[in-house]
Amino acid sequence: MSFSGPVGSLPLPSFVQNRLFSSTPRTKALSIDNINPHVKEAKYAVRGELAIKSEQYRAQLAKGEGKDLPFDSVISANIGNPQQLDQKPITFFRQVASLVENPQLLENEDALEKSFGYKSDVIERAKKLLKDVKSVGAYSQSQGAPGIRKSVADFIERRDGYPADPESIYLCAGASAGVNSLMNVMCADKQSGVLVPIPQYPLYTATLSLLNAHCVPYYLKEEDQWSTDVEGMRTALKDAQKKGINVRAVVVINPGNPTGGSLAAENIESVLELAAEENLVVLADEVYQTNVFEGEFRSFKKSLRELQKSDKNKDGKFDHIELASLHSISKGMVGECGHRGGYYEMVGFDPEVVAQIYKFVSIMLCPPVVGQCIVELMVNPPKEGEPSYELYREEYDTIFHNLKKRAHALYDAFKEMEGVECQYPQGSMYLYPTIQLSPNAIEAAKKEGKNPDDFYCLRLLDATGVCIVPGSGFGQKEGTLHFRTTFLAPGTDWVSRITDFHKEFMDKYR
Amino acid sequence: MSFSGPVGSLPLPSFVQNRLFSSTPRTKALSIDNINPHVKEAKYAVRGELAIKSEQYRAQLAKGEGKDLPFDSVISANIGNPQQLDQKPITFFRQVASLVENPQLLENEDALEKSFGYKSDVIERAKKLLKDVKSVGAYSQSQGAPGIRKSVADFIERRDGYPADPESIYLCAGASAGVNSLMNVMCADKQSGVLVPIPQYPLYTATLSLLNAHCVPYYLKEEDQWSTDVEGMRTALKDAQKKGINVRAVVVINPGNPTGGSLAAENIESVLELAAEENLVVLADEVYQTNVFEGEFRSFKKSLRELQKSDKNKDGKFDHIELASLHSISKGMVGECGHRGGYYEMVGFDPEVVAQIYKFVSIMLCPPVVGQCIVELMVNPPKEGEPSYELYREEYDTIFHNLKKRAHALYDAFKEMEGVECQYPQGSMYLYPTIQLSPNAIEAAKKEGKNPDDFYCLRLLDATGVCIVPGSGFGQKEGTLHFRTTFLAPGTDWVSRITDFHKEFMDKYR
Repeated sequence: MSFSGPVGSLPLPSFVQNRLFSSTPRTKALSIDNINPHVKEAKYAVRGELAIKSEQYRAQLAKGEGKDLPFDSVISANIGNPQQLDQKPITFFRQVASLVENPQLLENEDALEKSFGYKSDVIERAKKLLKDVKSVGAYSQSQGAPGIRKSVADFIERRDGYPADPESIYLCAGASAGVNSLMNVMCADKQSGVLVPIPQYPLYTATLSLLNAHCVPYYLKEEDQWSTDVEGMRTALKDAQKKGINVRAVVVINPGNPTGGSLAAENIESVLELAAEENLVVLADEVYQTNVFEGEFRSFKKSLRELQKSDKNKDGKFDHIELASLHSISKGMVGECGHRGGYYEMVGFDPEVVAQIYKFVSIMLCPPVVGQCIVELMVNPPKEGEPSYELYREEYDTIFHNLKKRAHALYDAFKEMEGVECQYPQGSMYLYPTIQLSPNAIEAAKKEGKNPDDFYCLRLLDATGVCIVPGSGFGQKEGTLHFRTTFLAPGTDWVSRITDFHKEFMDKYR
Repeated sequence: MSFSGPVGSLPLPSFVQNRLFSSTPRTKALSIDNINPHVKEAKYAVRGELAIKSEQYRAQLAKGEGKDLPFDSVISANIGNPQQLDQKPITFFRQVASLVENPQLLENEDALEKSFGYKSDVIERAKKLLKDVKSVGAYSQSQGAPGIRKSVADFIERRDGYPADPESIYLCAGASAGVNSLMNVMCADKQSGVLVPIPQYPLYTATLSLLNAHCVPYYLKEEDQWSTDVEGMRTALKDAQKKGINVRAVVVINPGNPTGGSLAAENIESVLELAAEENLVVLADEVYQTNVFEGEFRSFKKSLRELQKSDKNKDGKFDHIELASLHSISKGMVGECGHRGGYYEMVGFDPEVVAQIYKFVSIMLCPPVVGQCIVELMVNPPKEGEPSYELYREEYDTIFHNLKKRAHALYDAFKEMEGVECQYPQGSMYLYPTIQLSPNAIEAAKKEGKNPDDFYCLRLLDATGVCIVPGSGFGQKEGTLHFRTTFLAPGTDWVSRITDFHKEFMDKYR
């Protein structure tokens, strides 16, 4: 409430005087200066300034108020959000989901088939899931429904050729929630640290900021398809230890976000070797395991088991390793990120530590149960010969090929762009090219108080409606500039918006 | 790997010797002694030892291995998990959910109606939600889909008679996730504290433990239907401040968990007055707002707006108050806890603080989108005259009346039990009776190293299969004993299991 008028020159009514001179505090309990400083420190550029601005443009266009804008649509190439763009959900998954949501539909199987083409395996699967969870509206066990965890264990065994224990599998509300739980338990105090690749998906640095623990960065080898450099990792570790940091774990993102790389078996083995020698927990973020365009995905779990029975384990150094591997329904050909589902498998963890992780997750009760069901469908899709197999296969392959095709189209476009260099697309949903900007462009950015890559991405958004994320949001070697873009958006128009803008930008600041 | 045999007396193969004498660390990176101590400190009894034991009994019975057990079913009266027990989901909600899960069903509206009885408003609502979220498999805005937030704001306005701003509404993965976000931002350091009612739902103490902040307990007046005692709250606050604790907020759970109480308008006003005078954020946990059996629910938001325009606000002391009110789809007649949906409305918060909350929630991307849709259905159910109204009303009222009936049956049973005293059931899903145990019983508990209430609940579970939660899990006045039980389980057999057990227990330890 505000009072205009000459206070003091006229007698004010007593209740107004009371307001002006009351001893009641007028400030807020919470201000930017007294809230949790670690929340303030946390950075999460993927949904930051650029994303918010792009949403404002989108809203403007939707209201028909965007006539003065130099573009007629916003392209969200900033977030790996497949179904917001072109990707259709897989029919089998959604048919089953509709039945677990409304089991009354199961009372007329005939109509389901005749009017909607639901096959018998859809109906069977829904019944199986409902038997396990009873109702998708009920809480499950905090670590996830037992039958679904069993399916995940079977999947891991088929994938790797080594068994998995359903008791060691924790379902979670997307891999982010899993990382959050694991990090919360691992980081004991402000001397705790975790080795994190640079560039990285900013969930890791943000979570470490929130926990007031140290991010110990190690750089990926851009020139070698963004592979891991174990000697560089060891140096980073030793330097951190010298500073008194208690490094607890090493994070590896494979296939890489934002890099688009995909690690070879030797890379994975050398990381496991480092972890064994230095007593580090390995956190393997494998959410893009089906987005692999070159070669084959290899899991950390498989490499660990192979190492454990190999000659390299003569002294038993791999016996005790602690590995947490994460997977998700958000990425791959599934792309069901809005359902918030995922899992992590813990291998070699002390049971007392696992009990604390259980307690931690139980405070948030359980992961979304429909998301858990979709985890089951992802790890146990229709098999050859089953009624829904053919359509599933076709949809899955189409999505895969379209992603690969677009990755290459984008890569080819980047090859033609002045001052842009990009590694060959190997996996995940992103490309992360280097960009060299002229001194004039860097100067112009400085004048606006921006990093040069932020400046470039902001200008791109303002000029074209294409939203990408500057390298500063993921980390990059001092003196280099990058940006991350997904290749999920349909068509090629938006790619030429980028190339055209780039030409003009380079000319303007030459 | 373990080695049996006389190590040292026989020559061992070199690789075994290497294992035994290698310098490679043999310990785990993580042990109970070096993980986050605040995770260890956190307590969450609702899903603790008793809950785990009851699940083991259930699994035993399911496998047909429970022939020696003195009961043939496990009754989970420990968790407010309606659909795991008797409660059927509301048809309208699940019909809409099935359509947003599989929009292909919308291609044959005729069959939906004829074969499955889907009414036109079900179809319209699904289309409206899909227009807002595009796909339930896509990420939404981190604070929730705009159209759904608008529906929530409209609901609040209808409920209270005062407008609400969709921009101040944050959807979340159940109220627990909302509390977690708010507490993370509010608690700045280890001197931060929050006033928490005793008894309380242990989410609050657990979250404060994790954040290494202080729980500042205030006691509810059991003898007065578990109402708030503002003078007691003020004393608790002053005592904490004297110890150097920076008290940031006050939590009120209304209707009460575990107490079953429901606050009168005077209680709410006096809490707001305290908050205004002492510059505290008010955290109003109102997830049981439709579970009210006596009188009417009154929201903190409504009381705040009434106070703001009343004479009591002559000095403007209520103008600046910060109130966060939480609601959920998990409780009430909705009972969709497995979907993990809820919201909080923030009133009077500094925009810079809200921006930090936005960033915090964006790190976890977004709440489950189907859960968001069910929030929309909860706050905007079929209206009188609409095709689905009649069935909705009938289902809703039936659930309500059954809950009320069972609450009273349980209350009546407790009245007959020796040494048990219970407040009249007013709201929520729980009763929280006091129980007086004999010195012999207390001695027997001590011998097993248990609290007397833990001991009682454990014996009850072992003897009857009924799982309830001891008062120590929620807090109680020194020297008193309680337990919490839901009244969700169907039938009355389980109530007589409790009364029969109680008689024997009292006789045994007389």
